[in-house]
Amino acid sequence: MYIDDLETPALLIDLDIMERNLRRAADYARGHGLRLRPHTKTHKIPLLARKQLELGAAGLTVAKVGEAEVMQAATPPELLVAYPVVGRSKAERLAAVARNTPVTVALDSLFAARQLSEATSRARVQFGVLVEVDAGYGRVGVPPGEVRELAAAIRGLPGIDFHGIAFFPGHILEMGEPALRALCDLRGVITAVLSDLKRAGIPVRIVSGGSSPTLFHSHLVPEMNEIRPGTYIFNDRNTLDCAACGLEDCAASVLTTVVSASRAGRIIVDGGSKTFSSDGPVGRAEVSFGHVVEAPEAVFFRMNEEHGYIDVAAAERSFEVGERLRIIPNHICPAVNLHAQLYGIHGRRVEQVWAVEGRGRIQ
Amino acid sequence: MYIDDLETPALLIDLDIMERNLRRAADYARGHGLRLRPHTKTHKIPLLARKQLELGAAGLTVAKVGEAEVMQAATPPELLVAYPVVGRSKAERLAAVARNTPVTVALDSLFAARQLSEATSRARVQFGVLVEVDAGYGRVGVPPGEVRELAAAIRGLPGIDFHGIAFFPGHILEMGEPALRALCDLRGVITAVLSDLKRAGIPVRIVSGGSSPTLFHSHLVPEMNEIRPGTYIFNDRNTLDCAACGLEDCAASVLTTVVSASRAGRIIVDGGSKTFSSDGPVGRAEVSFGHVVEAPEAVFFRMNEEHGYIDVAAAERSFEVGERLRIIPNHICPAVNLHAQLYGIHGRRVEQVWAVEGRGRIQ
Repeated sequence: MYIDDLETPALLIDLDIMERNLRRAADYARGHGLRLRPHTKTHKIPLLARKQLELGAAGLTVAKVGEAEVMQAATPPELLVAYPVVGRSKAERLAAVARNTPVTVALDSLFAARQLSEATSRARVQFGVLVEVDAGYGRVGVPPGEVRELAAAIRGLPGIDFHGIAFFPGHILEMGEPALRALCDLRGVITAVLSDLKRAGIPVRIVSGGSSPTLFHSHLVPEMNEIRPGTYIFNDRNTLDCAACGLEDCAASVLTTVVSASRAGRIIVDGGSKTFSSDGPVGRAEVSFGHVVEAPEAVFFRMNEEHGYIDVAAAERSFEVGERLRIIPNHICPAVNLHAQLYGIHGRRVEQVWAVEGRGRIQ
Repeated sequence: MYIDDLETPALLIDLDIMERNLRRAADYARGHGLRLRPHTKTHKIPLLARKQLELGAAGLTVAKVGEAEVMQAATPPELLVAYPVVGRSKAERLAAVARNTPVTVALDSLFAARQLSEATSRARVQFGVLVEVDAGYGRVGVPPGEVRELAAAIRGLPGIDFHGIAFFPGHILEMGEPALRALCDLRGVITAVLSDLKRAGIPVRIVSGGSSPTLFHSHLVPEMNEIRPGTYIFNDRNTLDCAACGLEDCAASVLTTVVSASRAGRIIVDGGSKTFSSDGPVGRAEVSFGHVVEAPEAVFFRMNEEHGYIDVAAAERSFEVGERLRIIPNHICPAVNLHAQLYGIHGRRVEQVWAVEGRGRIQ
């Protein structure tokens, strides 16, 4: 099968680029003695997770219990749920996973830890726990000064094994000098937390951080011994805008068809927010929903659910109804979540069709 | 089963409100002699489409061929694809649908019409066609002055039956006086197009328009004889912000759980862009991703895929990890697309569980 045989919109993955992205990260992690626990929310496909493990990943990361259930198919040595699992039935489902695969949860409340602890006694399993620290991103995570207290309380719970700390440096988006400064600040925060835990006699085995943009800077925070990048497998326009990858490292693009060209200088393609997600650009003033491969000067300026509006006034040629365009999405993770299949390509040939098994596992 | 038994996030539909919304629109359409061809992209569930038909809808509207395939299960008397279907294999799939159910397509290019015409000869079916006019929204649709030429060309194609014109008044969002003025302008555009077609001796059977916000103003454009609202079945925060419905008319809400409360005045719930979509508000300066039922003064100010950030500083009480909150999404259509099931509720009881059969049918 060839790309031309596919109906549109279709999410294409360049297999060579993906392979190179995976190897580069695996080599980097190995070279710096870092455990790589890739976040599988980007691809949601057990077969690709298996590939990450075969290249040396120490385990897998997921966000939701439903994703943990799906990723068991990759037979990982261990699973990290990098999300505060809350809810009795969720803890029970996770305990069922833990019967086959060691499970660690990153959380930030005693409430969540207690629910997990209760589930372990019923299911006769153990959970590893990381205390999530807010290291500057401002999402989940206790403030650095409160880690010790929560860690101590968690250590008193049965069925729970305190492994260390986790954080997500999602606020570090601008590579180069700004990233170096921010990583220096981050190191200060982490060092203080670790000293605090040491003084309290609480042993720390895992210091887990790492995003895709900061991936290749991880060694600048030597206290960190584990990284959890996700996007790096495919990259996207936002990673590109962070200067954390090049255009040649973007493996994913959406094949679209021009369905309307009724106005001069503007076309409509058959993919909108149900194909790309409506995530806007990160750190870019101009609103744009993707990079048009065949016309980099075109601006993907608006979407509805099934319509992508592209301003082609600045493009070097005109576009006609029926033509196909490839567009690199701003944010590949929610885009993958909208597709039932991904198509692995080699040149113009479609070599793989993967079901997105973790799609929509929001519970 | 009760709401408390559901895992979160879960999309709840209040059955009484939905029923009232459906009846009100059906009664209005009947009272004004309008054909109601509801857009099923909002709910994507054949059973609900069947309900719309039983209440008097003349047919159903879909956006994509895949949705037409799914909606055949509702056994509609006819299907309108309100989208320029482009692609040979798509035209063939649609011809297969047309063997069982009369199919009309709204399109804006001779290219699309020719592809459909070619597919009819192979499959021995007929397609109805509406010429899409851009009546001010600026998406698909030929300029009003070009309708006649396209209609005439389409009438020359075999297998294609020209039914009339279609437009989408998506630009009319502010109800009250601004809507009345805009509808008056719209009427001018439509009248001119119809005169033009009449002069050319081209008979027009269907004049199809109508959005959910303008639904109950449709009689102000008496040339229009068909409406295609979608959102009205559930309504959402954007419909509310348009003053096109009241809070008591919003049937859909997402049940979420507070998973983090590690910062004073701010909570994180377990639904983000993978649960609500990242569609922002329409016509509202403040960025907000939904209306928190239990704390209307709270601001849902940010999202990641699985995280909803809610500022509760202005709320009258505090919120704790494990609590559940219901949130009315900004835009219900892409939200539904992210859920495998919807839960029909009556008070606290869950009475229906519907699979979202049209989810992700983007092709």
